[in-house]
Amino acid sequence: MRGAVLYGPRDVRFEERETPKIIKSTDAIIRISATCVCGSDLWPYRGIQKIAQPTPMGHEYCGIVEEVGSAVKNVKPGQFVIGSFCISDNTCPHCRAGYQSGCQNLEFMTGAQAPIARVPWADGTLVATPELPSDDLIPSLLTVSDVLGTGWFAADAANVKPGSTVVVVGDGAVGSLGVLSAKQMGAERIIAMSRHQTRQKLAKEFGATDIVTERGDDGVARIKELTNGIGADSVLECVGTQESMMQAVRSTRPGGSIGYVGVPHGVQLDEERLFFMLVRRHGGPAPVRRYLPELINLVWNRKINPGKVFDLTLPLDQVGEGYRAMDERRAIKALLRP
Amino acid sequence: MRGAVLYGPRDVRFEERETPKIIKSTDAIIRISATCVCGSDLWPYRGIQKIAQPTPMGHEYCGIVEEVGSAVKNVKPGQFVIGSFCISDNTCPHCRAGYQSGCQNLEFMTGAQAPIARVPWADGTLVATPELPSDDLIPSLLTVSDVLGTGWFAADAANVKPGSTVVVVGDGAVGSLGVLSAKQMGAERIIAMSRHQTRQKLAKEFGATDIVTERGDDGVARIKELTNGIGADSVLECVGTQESMMQAVRSTRPGGSIGYVGVPHGVQLDEERLFFMLVRRHGGPAPVRRYLPELINLVWNRKINPGKVFDLTLPLDQVGEGYRAMDERRAIKALLRP
Repeated sequence: MRGAVLYGPRDVRFEERETPKIIKSTDAIIRISATCVCGSDLWPYRGIQKIAQPTPMGHEYCGIVEEVGSAVKNVKPGQFVIGSFCISDNTCPHCRAGYQSGCQNLEFMTGAQAPIARVPWADGTLVATPELPSDDLIPSLLTVSDVLGTGWFAADAANVKPGSTVVVVGDGAVGSLGVLSAKQMGAERIIAMSRHQTRQKLAKEFGATDIVTERGDDGVARIKELTNGIGADSVLECVGTQESMMQAVRSTRPGGSIGYVGVPHGVQLDEERLFFMLVRRHGGPAPVRRYLPELINLVWNRKINPGKVFDLTLPLDQVGEGYRAMDERRAIKALLRP
Repeated sequence: MRGAVLYGPRDVRFEERETPKIIKSTDAIIRISATCVCGSDLWPYRGIQKIAQPTPMGHEYCGIVEEVGSAVKNVKPGQFVIGSFCISDNTCPHCRAGYQSGCQNLEFMTGAQAPIARVPWADGTLVATPELPSDDLIPSLLTVSDVLGTGWFAADAANVKPGSTVVVVGDGAVGSLGVLSAKQMGAERIIAMSRHQTRQKLAKEFGATDIVTERGDDGVARIKELTNGIGADSVLECVGTQESMMQAVRSTRPGGSIGYVGVPHGVQLDEERLFFMLVRRHGGPAPVRRYLPELINLVWNRKINPGKVFDLTLPLDQVGEGYRAMDERRAIKALLRP
């Protein structure tokens, strides 16, 4: 088969790779129905995160089970499944506490930008849909695997409640779906920070009530102005830079909460300064497995349409163009179909 | 009157100062029944935190109201009152949300190591006892002003619940009362980290079930061993150094919570590393005013005896010895009586 392999900065190739096979009895092999490029794929693509060797790419996936190992009980060949980007056994104490992304057997999914993928710990990672989905549901089901699950975790970690005032820092796909998540959780006011018209439009479609185009001191001032000088109850940090994290911290009221899901790159905060700001912080790789049943259900019943986040659809063999379009911010998120 | 004034590193003087008077209509003047030296007083005493000029010291206090400004309604002369070390109006949005230590009119109490003190925003800061307390209750009532209120916030911020497994980092007065607080909140297991026998004994009296004497990697290994490899649900960080904060982070299970109340000095954390540890963090100056009624009630009804934390009692004019004894770790906490 042919799949996406990253060789170095801006060098992603669609090339012949060995077709994955069952290695352990807990594995499943799935035929990918759709996959996509993640914002976090851009860190190594841009060379900011170093890679040691050519690396098969892709960790967002859904598809049809082809084969399962002898120990797999929960999914079977022929089913349509969605899995978390975090591979988890779903039985260890951390999984049982709802933190499958901290599983004692944690692995990160990789190699899903391909027609066939191997999923370790299939029972603990995959959830099947009630039946085979209609084709138009597939983009939305795919988002559950990571980008929606991560936006959902950001909102959950930021303690979004009915009536909350929420700020979303980051207008990428995760931020946009953070807006959708906050809306679903009953937020009354959702302020999206964005300077890009297409992204502002998407945020509004997903439930944003206000758009703030300013950044830094001006952005903070604008948030304070919109919240009667108080700041937000909940802030979703969906970028991962020093600037975005401080934007989040400074937009939060004392006792308010920040949910952060952008992998921090070079972020070091002045803890003495933060101490006096009295914010709550929670974040990390999203425990998507915890949310899979609920989010699949919302998509299945067409209560939400997170698939709108894909503004570019390409055949899988044009995966390189998907990376380029996202890198150059011509696309919010690129869907790939084998 | 004479009160404590810090001139520079290890130079605290008990000297003539102007007796405080009502300045604003929202002030109260109180005659101090008891005050004490705070662990945070040791930062400037040791020269780690610089002071710009000679500084009247002391922010933990209780006593009898002598006089109130014309706008004060909630307390009156003759009442015994306890106030938070954070001066707050208790009416602004942050106060109403329970974050009086983030009050829009926030001031920090100072000059309480003296026989008379001025308390700004008296209505928002002071709470009176039901009647004049018996003398033996005064040390415990004094702790509510900061050291108990701060330990309580650490436990609250760390989400201690009935049945929780808790680790307390720091065996000073705040840490000891963090143990007491966790016990009151129903923690099942309370692991106190301490290498000092007298402090271990106090922690056990307050409810610690286990003592860990190791630090660093060994301390983390011991916590993991005691918690079946899982880590703690809640960790109270009561020191404020890089080492103690990392001890706290590494002792917490994924999805667990850290309540931090030690003012951070030179702490900068690697946020990328923390991201994958999935901990929750909340802390800052404790919103003691929120807890005053509940904690006064617990002391008044002799449900708790936090005054045991004072292992040295001195007449106020020996305040210098109080600082020395705490600096040299000969005392956990020094009570001062005018």
